[in-house]
Amino acid sequence: MVTDVNVAACYLDPVLDALNLTREHAYVLPAGEQQKTWANAEEVLDWLLGQRIARDGILIALGGGVIGDLTGFVAAIYQRGIAFVQIPTTLLSQVDSSVGGKTGVNHARGKNLIGAFHQPIAVFADTDTLNSLPPRELSAGLAEVIKCAMLGDAGLFARLERDIDALLALDAGALAEAIERCCQLKARIVALDERESLAGGPRTLLNLGHTFGHAVETYTKYETWLHGEAVGLGLAMAADLSMRLGWLKAEDAERCIRLVERARLPIAPPAGMTPDDFRSLMARDKKVAAGRLRLVLMRALGEAATTADFDPAALDATLDHFCGVAIRAA
Amino acid sequence: MVTDVNVAACYLDPVLDALNLTREHAYVLPAGEQQKTWANAEEVLDWLLGQRIARDGILIALGGGVIGDLTGFVAAIYQRGIAFVQIPTTLLSQVDSSVGGKTGVNHARGKNLIGAFHQPIAVFADTDTLNSLPPRELSAGLAEVIKCAMLGDAGLFARLERDIDALLALDAGALAEAIERCCQLKARIVALDERESLAGGPRTLLNLGHTFGHAVETYTKYETWLHGEAVGLGLAMAADLSMRLGWLKAEDAERCIRLVERARLPIAPPAGMTPDDFRSLMARDKKVAAGRLRLVLMRALGEAATTADFDPAALDATLDHFCGVAIRAA
Repeated sequence: MVTDVNVAACYLDPVLDALNLTREHAYVLPAGEQQKTWANAEEVLDWLLGQRIARDGILIALGGGVIGDLTGFVAAIYQRGIAFVQIPTTLLSQVDSSVGGKTGVNHARGKNLIGAFHQPIAVFADTDTLNSLPPRELSAGLAEVIKCAMLGDAGLFARLERDIDALLALDAGALAEAIERCCQLKARIVALDERESLAGGPRTLLNLGHTFGHAVETYTKYETWLHGEAVGLGLAMAADLSMRLGWLKAEDAERCIRLVERARLPIAPPAGMTPDDFRSLMARDKKVAAGRLRLVLMRALGEAATTADFDPAALDATLDHFCGVAIRAA
Repeated sequence: MVTDVNVAACYLDPVLDALNLTREHAYVLPAGEQQKTWANAEEVLDWLLGQRIARDGILIALGGGVIGDLTGFVAAIYQRGIAFVQIPTTLLSQVDSSVGGKTGVNHARGKNLIGAFHQPIAVFADTDTLNSLPPRELSAGLAEVIKCAMLGDAGLFARLERDIDALLALDAGALAEAIERCCQLKARIVALDERESLAGGPRTLLNLGHTFGHAVETYTKYETWLHGEAVGLGLAMAADLSMRLGWLKAEDAERCIRLVERARLPIAPPAGMTPDDFRSLMARDKKVAAGRLRLVLMRALGEAATTADFDPAALDATLDHFCGVAIRAA
């Protein structure tokens, strides 16, 4: 079992006890995104080899996305791949990173540049672990829940509008239902395109809001905004652009932006970030194909599509609108 | 394209020319098994990132098994996996390592301990590249050819008995036929068990001769015996043991040992290696399950089976016989 020092303090002993394991079966890493490195993956590999774990061993990731991604990657390359299990302890990892098989570590040149697709044999999400989650991280996880609803489940969207306050108050029933529906939707999409090998294929729909969000994360050097916060803003911007293109009804775009805001997520870019900043950072996105920016946008509430075929003037209007909001907020 | 300095001297420019590429598309590593390290894989990863190779890039391995395994592993983990092509330039890699998707690097604790299954999109084997192969390496490659025939293709075995001298003389027609039949057999077996996930499953048959061979390689610290030479001896020992168990006719066991010898491969262990050395080194083999040594043995010429159900006294007799041969030879 691999975990980090923060998660270990809360949950390591109970989980080890439940599995009849002891502390010698656990490797505890420091916490934080900056720990998602090859050097730490190598430490875990060395530990597994030192413990003489064979190819029928099972590696368990206990923690958030950093632990899940790193541990999954180690499982992918240890003796050409061993089984692994995810026990995600953040809302973000419960609804997003633990399902789909994306594993990897960061590189000086960028995030997740070294990795593999390696599916967990099981994912156990216990909503009780969210009781220790800081409020900002809870909201960040809700961004991915809202994303799922916006891109593929209008029924879930309506439930979220009803339940958002219960979710923020950690109501176990509301959480379990939202997590389950997100995982079902994600698994359905991933099954269509497991290795994201189709350019603009089904799996890219999961990037709704992410191109705007990555621009914000890069602009803020991944230091001040949580990933989910950037995605929350990105969802609001994607809804706004979809509305300007005439694809999404104005009232539905408004519902999306309002739900993001009610989840206590930002709906304005960082102070000082300009439309030009967005344009130049978005141009670097890996979804740029043949020089044209491809975006995931909404055709309707609960229906997303990936396209490079949109009016750039509408994008400019969205950027002007949101950056104006930012200036007013500053 | 990734290659090593020895292969580059012979073949890099013609291959680059044929593909309309230039030297800036090639990364040249030092040559040798000791180069199959994470450090070199990381160098290639850094180079790919520096060249801004995207997920639709194709990595080409030009060289023997070390280059193929390392390059395939880099392709497996670069941005969660990109396409790769094998251009194997040794007989061993043409008939064995280039087909089947096993990739990886060595670790201080053992060979191939870090790696992945990642199939090449194509394998191009040019028999002309064997003209520059040292004779010992040609024989080492023939060991895997003989292995294929012994475990799954009695017709190929008869052809090898007829063609062995032509193969040693680098007859292009004989080589092409032997390589093609080995690759077909291996692909058929790998397709049944792509990730070697079935304990004692079809893919383990490809380890005929390897448990004995690994003991020799470990005993000689991977310094003096080529892998194929150790496999050659292992094939002779596996045939002998299969005969002692009453599974293989004495005349067929004799034909196997004779063919190994005619391929200029050793049929005696290193001087000084005792039956006890074999037993203790074989006990460490990864094919040991639940404390019982599992071996790939022959039910008949062209038919192998993996089993832990054999009389240990027969194994002792084989070890005594071959180690006696070694003492006489010393």
